[in-house]
Amino acid sequence: MPYRRSAFFISDRTGITAESLGHTLLTQFDALEFKRETIPFVDTVEKARGIASHIRERAAADHHRPLVFSSIVNPDVREAVKVDEALCIDFFETFIGQIEHELHHKAELSVGKAHGVVNEERYDHRIEAVNYSLSHDDGIKMKGLDEADVILVGVSRSGKTPTCLYLALQYGIRAANYPLTPDDLGHDGLPAQLLAHRQKLFGLTIDPLRLHSIRSERRRDSKYASVDNCRYEVNEAESLFRQHGVPFLNATHKSIEEIATTIVHQAHLTRRF
Amino acid sequence: MPYRRSAFFISDRTGITAESLGHTLLTQFDALEFKRETIPFVDTVEKARGIASHIRERAAADHHRPLVFSSIVNPDVREAVKVDEALCIDFFETFIGQIEHELHHKAELSVGKAHGVVNEERYDHRIEAVNYSLSHDDGIKMKGLDEADVILVGVSRSGKTPTCLYLALQYGIRAANYPLTPDDLGHDGLPAQLLAHRQKLFGLTIDPLRLHSIRSERRRDSKYASVDNCRYEVNEAESLFRQHGVPFLNATHKSIEEIATTIVHQAHLTRRF
Repeated sequence: MPYRRSAFFISDRTGITAESLGHTLLTQFDALEFKRETIPFVDTVEKARGIASHIRERAAADHHRPLVFSSIVNPDVREAVKVDEALCIDFFETFIGQIEHELHHKAELSVGKAHGVVNEERYDHRIEAVNYSLSHDDGIKMKGLDEADVILVGVSRSGKTPTCLYLALQYGIRAANYPLTPDDLGHDGLPAQLLAHRQKLFGLTIDPLRLHSIRSERRRDSKYASVDNCRYEVNEAESLFRQHGVPFLNATHKSIEEIATTIVHQAHLTRRF
Repeated sequence: MPYRRSAFFISDRTGITAESLGHTLLTQFDALEFKRETIPFVDTVEKARGIASHIRERAAADHHRPLVFSSIVNPDVREAVKVDEALCIDFFETFIGQIEHELHHKAELSVGKAHGVVNEERYDHRIEAVNYSLSHDDGIKMKGLDEADVILVGVSRSGKTPTCLYLALQYGIRAANYPLTPDDLGHDGLPAQLLAHRQKLFGLTIDPLRLHSIRSERRRDSKYASVDNCRYEVNEAESLFRQHGVPFLNATHKSIEEIATTIVHQAHLTRRF
């Protein structure tokens, strides 16, 4: 039987917090194999008891104690999830007392504020930002760039669109993007449409071989996807960024989260919530 | 001087984990005001010392001890962030020893795996899912629905698009969406294009007054945005869902995270990473 542990991420709401920290901890044990399961919306003692049985069964089947990472506000629900047959860590419980003590203030013990609709204004910001990014994707619409918080610039398939959408969804930031096409490259000037918005530009670049591999998925054996062309476009784009003082980052070995967070940080963008 | 505490979320990588748990904890103290600051990519002792000075200055200016929530893998960097003038909690440090003990295994202490490009395959799944959602947004393209993991159905402005994008970005899930237009409503059958994919349908509904308010932002005083029409469309859509056994949820008081997580859970969708 291979060594394999079950890992549960349990929450009274979405499970995003429990997953996020649990995942960070488990990635430190890459040599081991984990079977992961997220169980959201465990908000009654009855549901919690069902989950506890499920964990006990898994412990018996695995012949190893599962790891249970939870973030549950209600103390009764929290207790009902805990079983002796597993290592149970509740992130909320671990810290809330310490913070109450520091703040001289009792926690309200209300569930689901972190990822709930805290207020409609915040929700609207995100939806508007998503709509903004969609209508200003790939240079479709160059009107309204005054409203952009940031304009991502880069060659085709350098990761602009997912990054814009992540910025909108996660931070409520209005991110437009402009693709540098072959017409924009090979000479010194920035595309005319971008000149008025130089302060908002942020460049994305990518390793030419990785670009070649991504583009080949779309159009194999095309000039567009050829190594030579990818190298040419990337070189030209980077030299344009340097020439005009456009900050840029290399997206090749970064996740969407890392790219987006780096841009927020380096461009000093203000989150809309 | 109003009572206000500074809260810092500090990380050697994106700060998403530190923010997520820190935010969850702070929402339990709604009566208090926090000035929040996220500082990502603190990955050297030198940077950490700079941050420590910044926190000390803030403590002096605030006349209150800041709260510092960190998640830092390297012990030297972690220690360099800590200051006596603040409550410093490191999420990583708090649990890693306990987990090492449980697993009889030493943590690798490697930074940035959780939100890094763990492997290109995972990255590709997300990008593909985003592209899929974009090309199957608002029923633009009905071809390729065989590849959809889920198809969100609902009236215009019920939250389908942001939810699809969140499912793609967060979970690598291919989510198409189909808007129920007035043509699709008022009779008993599902739209013909959806019949072959009944098992993949998931409905979104919304409170008619909230819909009225959202639609009015776009087209004030139109029939489209009128309370009567919103009420009619929502009623018809819900009756269609009920008639055809399409699971659905009411998105009115839910955040994008909650809507997406609920769909993953209820429709038993498999995350692509």
